[in-house]
Order: sequence, then C-alpha cells, then structure tokens
Amino acid sequence: MAPTLGEIADRLSARLTGGDPGTPVSGVAPFDRAGPGEITCAASAKLLARVSGSRAEAVIVGPGAGPSAVPLLVVGNPLLTFARAIALFHRPPAPEPGISPHAVVGQGFVHGEDLFVAPGVVIGKGVRVGDRVTLLPNVVLGDGVVLGDDVTIHPQACVLWGCTLGSRVVIHAGAVIGADGFGFAGEAGKLHKIPQTGVVTLGDDVEIGANNTIDRATFGATAIGNGVKTDNLVHVAHNVTVGDDTVLIAQCGISGGTVIGKNCVLAGQAGVAGHLTIGDFVMVGPQSGVGKDLAAGQVVTGSPVMPHRIWLRVQRLVEKLPELARTLRNLEKRVKNLEGGDGQHP
Amino acid sequence: MAPTLGEIADRLSARLTGGDPGTPVSGVAPFDRAGPGEITCAASAKLLARVSGSRAEAVIVGPGAGPSAVPLLVVGNPLLTFARAIALFHRPPAPEPGISPHAVVGQGFVHGEDLFVAPGVVIGKGVRVGDRVTLLPNVVLGDGVVLGDDVTIHPQACVLWGCTLGSRVVIHAGAVIGADGFGFAGEAGKLHKIPQTGVVTLGDDVEIGANNTIDRATFGATAIGNGVKTDNLVHVAHNVTVGDDTVLIAQCGISGGTVIGKNCVLAGQAGVAGHLTIGDFVMVGPQSGVGKDLAAGQVVTGSPVMPHRIWLRVQRLVEKLPELARTLRNLEKRVKNLEGGDGQHP
Amino acid sequence: MAPTLGEIADRLSARLTGGDPGTPVSGVAPFDRAGPGEITCAASAKLLARVSGSRAEAVIVGPGAGPSAVPLLVVGNPLLTFARAIALFHRPPAPEPGISPHAVVGQGFVHGEDLFVAPGVVIGKGVRVGDRVTLLPNVVLGDGVVLGDDVTIHPQACVLWGCTLGSRVVIHAGAVIGADGFGFAGEAGKLHKIPQTGVVTLGDDVEIGANNTIDRATFGATAIGNGVKTDNLVHVAHNVTVGDDTVLIAQCGISGGTVIGKNCVLAGQAGVAGHLTIGDFVMVGPQSGVGKDLAAGQVVTGSPVMPHRIWLRVQRLVEKLPELARTLRNLEKRVKNLEGGDGQHP
Repeated sequence: MAPTLGEIADRLSARLTGGDPGTPVSGVAPFDRAGPGEITCAASAKLLARVSGSRAEAVIVGPGAGPSAVPLLVVGNPLLTFARAIALFHRPPAPEPGISPHAVVGQGFVHGEDLFVAPGVVIGKGVRVGDRVTLLPNVVLGDGVVLGDDVTIHPQACVLWGCTLGSRVVIHAGAVIGADGFGFAGEAGKLHKIPQTGVVTLGDDVEIGANNTIDRATFGATAIGNGVKTDNLVHVAHNVTVGDDTVLIAQCGISGGTVIGKNCVLAGQAGVAGHLTIGDFVMVGPQSGVGKDLAAGQVVTGSPVMPHRIWLRVQRLVEKLPELARTLRNLEKRVKNLEGGDGQHP
Repeated sequence: MAPTLGEIADRLSARLTGGDPGTPVSGVAPFDRAGPGEITCAASAKLLARVSGSRAEAVIVGPGAGPSAVPLLVVGNPLLTFARAIALFHRPPAPEPGISPHAVVGQGFVHGEDLFVAPGVVIGKGVRVGDRVTLLPNVVLGDGVVLGDDVTIHPQACVLWGCTLGSRVVIHAGAVIGADGFGFAGEAGKLHKIPQTGVVTLGDDVEIGANNTIDRATFGATAIGNGVKTDNLVHVAHNVTVGDDTVLIAQCGISGGTVIGKNCVLAGQAGVAGHLTIGDFVMVGPQSGVGKDLAAGQVVTGSPVMPHRIWLRVQRLVEKLPELARTLRNLEKRVKNLEGGDGQHP
Repeated sequence: MAPTLGEIADRLSARLTGGDPGTPVSGVAPFDRAGPGEITCAASAKLLARVSGSRAEAVIVGPGAGPSAVPLLVVGNPLLTFARAIALFHRPPAPEPGISPHAVVGQGFVHGEDLFVAPGVVIGKGVRVGDRVTLLPNVVLGDGVVLGDDVTIHPQACVLWGCTLGSRVVIHAGAVIGADGFGFAGEAGKLHKIPQTGVVTLGDDVEIGANNTIDRATFGATAIGNGVKTDNLVHVAHNVTVGDDTVLIAQCGISGGTVIGKNCVLAGQAGVAGHLTIGDFVMVGPQSGVGKDLAAGQVVTGSPVMPHRIWLRVQRLVEKLPELARTLRNLEKRVKNLEGGDGQHP
C-alpha cells in the first residue's frame, strides 16, 4: 500500500500546504524527473525559483518558500528531510540474519542479535560484535576486532587485528582498516621496519569510503572521531587523529601524526603533511597541499595553501603571468630610455 | 607449429616486403629486444629511423616507411597491428569453463555458455550473465547484477547490487563498482546519509583499472559509455556520466554529477569538480584541476586549468618568479630615482 | 618473565649509562608517554633536549648525547635501535603453520617449511613458495607465481599470474600486483587493447602498501628493486623500473616505462610522467609533477618540478602575485607620467 501525502507529511514532520492529504505517493525523484505521485525537493534558491514548474505531487521546501500552485512540504531542513523521504521508499537488498556455512569464524566469537555473515567472510580469534551487524561477502576481520551495533561492512573490506569500530559505522567495499603505518628507520641507505604496534579506532556514525586505507598507529591509535565521513580512495596515515564530523573527500591524504580538528572539510585530492595541527572548522580546497599548522576556521586553497580569498586572486594572475612578464620587460626598456634620456634634455 | 612470416602477414592483412614468407616466426618483442624469428613494430618516427638496424625477422611499419634491408610488414595502423600480432602469440592463463564448488551462487542465477566461476566467488540473487563470462577468484556480484557477453572480472573486484555491464567488459582486480555515492545532508554540524538508490551502468568494451571506485548514483545511474578505459586507482563519483571512448588515466577523479564528453582524455592525477559539463574531445593535463565547464576540443592544463598553450608559457615563468620580482623591485627604485631626480636637473 | 635493562642493552648492543641493569623492563613507548619500566627513544635534537624530563626507565640516544639523570642506552643509530627494541616486545597475531581446509590450492603447488595459508586463499596452478610464507585470508595467487622465503601477504591482496617476489617481502592488504598495464592502440577514435604479456618482479625486502597497484609489463617485467618500500595507494605503471631502496610515499604514481634510480624518495601524491629516467638519490616533493629526466641527487618540488631551493622562493612569491601585479601597474603609470612629463620640464 502506497502511503498518502498526508502520511508522508506526518512521517517527515512537514507542514503540507496546498495538496490533498489523501493522494497516494509512489516514490521520490530528483527535481527534474519527479512526476505525478512522486515527491521531490527544492533545497537551493535555484530550484526554489522553479517550484511552480514542477510536475511532482509535492515539493519539500524550507520555511522561506513563497506560496505555490504545487503542493509543498514545508520543513526546517529540506535536504535532510529529502534524505529521510528517500529512506522511506528505498529498500536496498537486506540479507536475512544468519552465519553463512561458507564463512569461517574464529574462536571466541561473541555477537549480538540479528547478525549477518555472508559467504567468504573470515573472522579471526576473539572478535566481538554488537547487534545488527552485517558482514558482506569476503570481508575479513582480524583477531580481537571489536564492532559496535548496527555496523555494515561491504564486500572485500578488512578490519585488521585489534582495531575497534563504534556503532552505526559503514565501511565500504575494499577499504583497509589497520594496515601497518609506514614507518622505517634508515641505516646506510637501507630501511628497516619500525613495528607498528597500535590500532585504528573509529567512533560512532563513521562512514569510510571504498578502497580507503586507514593505517594503524606505531603506538596507541590512529583515531577517527564520531561522525567522520570519508569518500573513496582516501589515505589516513599512522597516528593521525581526525576530529568529530570531519569530511575527507575523495583521494585526499593525511600524513603521519597529524591532528585534524572537528567539522573540517578536506576537498578532493588534497594532502596534509605529517605532524601538523589543523584546527576545527578548517576548509581545505581541492588539490591543495597543507604544509603548516592551520588555526580553527581557516579556509585555504593552493599547493602550498594560502587563504582562499588570496588564492582566488592569485589563480587569476597565474594565467596572466606571460602578460605581466611582458609588461615588466617593456617597462624596463622604457625606464632605461628615461634614464639614458637625461642627456637629451637640454 | 610456429606460423610463417607469410601466414602472419595474411593474419594481419599486412603487405610483406623483402622477407621470405616461409620463415617461421617464434614470437613478438619490443623494438630494442627483437631478434631472429621475432617480429616487432616501429610505430614512431624515432623507431622508423632505426629500422635498418633491427635484428628482428620483420618490422611492422606504416605505409610511409621507406625501403629497408630488414623485411617489413606494411600496414595502415602499425601499433594496432602490433597489438594483434601480440595477441596471436600471447596466451594468458585461461581457465576451463565451469563453476567451482568453492563458489557460492545465489538464487535465480542465469548464465550463457562457457561460464567460468573461480573459487571464492560470491554471486547474489537474481544475477544474469551472458556467454563466455569469467569470474576470477573472490569476485563478488551483488543482487540483480547483469553482465553481457565476454566479460572478465579479475580477482577481488566487486560489482554491487543492481549494476549492469555491457559486453566485452574487463574489470581489473580490486575495483569496486557500485559503492554508495558520497551524499550527506547536514544538520547542526552532523551529516546524515542520503540513501543512494541508483546504480552504475557500464557500456560495451569498457575496461576498468585495478582498485578503481565507480560509485552508484543517488537516483538513476552513474553511466560509463561504450569503449571507456580507466587506468588504476581512478575515482568516479555518483551520477557522473562519462562519454564513449573517453580515457581516464591513473589516479584521476571526477566529482559528483559531472558530465564528461566522448573521446576525452583526463591525464594522471587530474581532478574534475562536481556538476560540470566537459565537451567531447577535451584533453586535461596531468595533475590538473578542472573547476569550470569546458567546451568541446579544449586542451587544458594547470590547477586550476588554463589553455595548454598558455600553461606552457606560464610554467616557464613560475620558476622565474624570483627573478621577475627582483627586476620589479629594481625598477621601482630606478623609477623613484627618476621621479625624485627632477630636482637634481638644473 | 620481563627482560632486565641489562639484558635489553645486550640485545640492542647498547651501552647502558646510569641505570640499574637488573631493573625489569615491561615494554617500549613513545617519548611523551613512556613511564617507569618502559624504554623510549630520543632520536631528534628536539627530544634529546628533553631527555632529563623523561619518566622512562631508560632512553635510547645517539653517541653525542650528554650526561643525564635518566639512564641512557647509547647506540650508533637510535631510531633503528628503537625499532629493534619495539620488535623485542611486540607480538602481532602469528598463525600456526598449516593450510586451511577453506583455502583452494592449485595443481603443482610447491612450498617450503612453516607455510600458513588462511581461509579463503586461492592459489593457482604451478605456484612455488619458499619457507615461512604467510598468506592471510582471501589472498589470491595466480598461476605460476613464485614467492621467496619469509613472505607475508595480507588479506585480500593478489599477485597475478607469472609474477615473482623475492624474500622477506610484505604485501599489504588489497594491493594488486600484476594487473594489466594500461596499453591501447587507437583506430578511428576507438581504443584496442595491447595484450600485456609481461610480469612484475619484486626484489628482496620489498614492502608494498595497502591498495597499491603495480602493473605487469607489456613485455618483460615491471621491476621493483630490493628494499623498495611503498606507502598506501601507490600506482606503478607497466614497464617501470624502481631502483633499490627507493621509497614511494602514499598516493604517488609513476607512468609507464619510467626508470627510477636507487635510494630515491617520491613524496606523497607526486607523479612522474612516462618514459623518463630519474637518477639515484633524487628527492621529489609532495604533489610534485615530474615531466622531464632528472640527474642523480636532484631535489625537486613543484608541478612541474623545479629545484627545491628555487621552489622555496617561488612559493612565497605566488601568494604575493596580487601585490606584485599591483606594484607593476602602479609603476606603469609612474613611468607613463615620467615619459609624458617631458613636456612639463622647461
């Protein structure tokens, strides 16, 4: 039975204006594709201006939206509400709880309710996991790993010995949690391994992207705070600390021992050198290189980074360097003329 | 039985000049290593100039090559012909068709002829694959995945629920097709997941490099066109469209919602921001950062990008910035002198 | 039984000054956390200056360290000795030798003593491995792979057909050794695969980071020398040669056919173009782009690279470009005034 518009409004704590609460809703769709029976969202000013042209059954909007011929679902945070609306209709494949006979489970495994272990999963010794844990095909958990409740680990990811994950953590496919940190001692041109004795700890509500590499600490822990989200192919070196709710976009990398604050955003392909301290709410632009400490709240871009507002002007000038150089050479000649020109004045 | 030079010429549709068609050919080799019994290729002007010094049994050349003491195999496209010549002799390990008893196959699996499923493969429910499909060890296919004919998936790659691949697709080891797109809605400093309901579609003749990450769409599909080739460690975000025959070189990344045209080349470690439109036949240089739309046929380099011909001049000047700054300071002094010098003139 | 300080000094060939050789030692710890019973290390001048404030039982120092109230373990190479000290106490999970019944081993498998094969491992035909080889869960070895002695391959890494590894090699989780090189021949806008017939060879004492991709050669071998260490997410293309004891830091990439010398360091996110020759002892800075040959001993940074000492000055000026441009425009006006001012002079 499709839910009605009124029921949806209730579920989303939205105020419905202008629609028939009894209309059945079949799903959600992006703004440009939503049609009859579907609800969509206008979270940006750009889309808000186009609401009256929408063919959707209703549009989720913020409190500031004007009246519209199209029914509105008015809420405080349209994008978040849209996320919840999608979740009402989206049913990704959900396996039945149980441990596959094709999985291998080590001694001393302790688990909560509603565990799912897929074929090909290999669980080491002394692993403890909470309720509603889902381990998808070919996942590997090393000895002594601890997972909280509601953890999902996607195919072919691994969490190596001693690492611990909080609750509501998602690890995407192919991610490696707890490989050795990259530590070596040099002697006469040869490198000798420094044993990496520490672990990785992930807080609650962490989501780690596909094919990430989060290395274990030399001592202690590489510590990823609560609510941290990483995109794909992100590298976090040994002994890094990442503060709560920080976001690491695809292909960025953080070198060993660096401390990143809370609520930071590192854009795609950015890099941070080792043993630095980055404050809270710092934003680092794409492909930027951070080689020094950054105080809280800074917005920086460039390789190496500079304040973003300066970078905006710099990058326009870089393209004009040939012109600037030409002007400079021309000016040099004219000054030489002026200098040499003294003799011509009577 | 080794094929003869004449047989090879026939198989490659090449015109043999100067050699004995009855000579047996034992294999192919690169230009500098090819010896008696081997054929090689001179596709570049540089190698063409050295053909007479080759010890090879015959050299594959283009129609413009001059006469030579070394036998020639004259063709329209030497490199393509060389690729075919290699294929005549190269026999990579090819497993016998069959489903390993160490694989796990879900309900409703439908497949064509000559299927090979290696040990450790896990196939979800309702998967459909064509003829001559090869799934190497520990590959994972999610529920509802569809593969065309002649698809090869290398070890430890995964194709997650609902994704579809065309025919003659190769997925290299460790690649992740269909992890969730990186979409979150913020609320009071916390990020809440936007369910990613879409899939990934790969066209025909696509080759995806090792440890790539191609994310599923929020809605609809992340769409990779026919003939697209990606190198290793490439990231393609949710809802990206990549046009036919485009090439993505190692470690490049494309952010969410961007549309890349046909026959483009993104060089290594390049990055493209989200929600952009890149025309056909665009070339982006290595480590470049694209932050704006690009019209068809543009050749750009830099971070951020500029026309390549400008970048060539800019990058030479960047190294000379200290010199330019010195000239500028010197000039400033001289101008000051000239300005102040008025009083010194009688 | 905890070893005594005297025993530790013997094991490390260190000269103990000022401590009781009979004191039991419980472990090692980083400088700032080491307390009673623990030994630590002061390898840098910065830490050396703080030795007298350490609460550690003893501090490993170099020969130049002054006298101290805290017991010292004086050695030639403090960091290397610290690495050895850690190894005395660190016992990572070590599985009992044996082949898991959940592994699949191909025909003709030849192995030495103390082999461990974990569940989920898949070994192809004709594989030969030495003594004390450890294959962790879900590792895949292709047909004809050869491993030396004391090789450890971490979960979900794969070594594909024909590749060979020396002794004391460590492959971290998710690494792909021997995927096809990225070689295609173009014809009328379509790309056709050039078969990749070669292999990858890794020397002795090589350590390959998590989720690396080291591609097989078109012909011959992609050759990684003895003692090479790679960090995570590193890409090495087909036919690359990496000299002995070279270090490739996280997320760097090397394009096809390039030859890197011995004892080089490529910093994080650096990239090297194809078919170049980089001499021994070259250092390439982070995020740098190498587009030309580099003679031995060069230290370079930038994209594209320039000598590091020039880059240090350049990067300070980049941020000042707006100021330089302003000065230039101002100067232009002043020169114009001076030029036009002729008429004002009597």
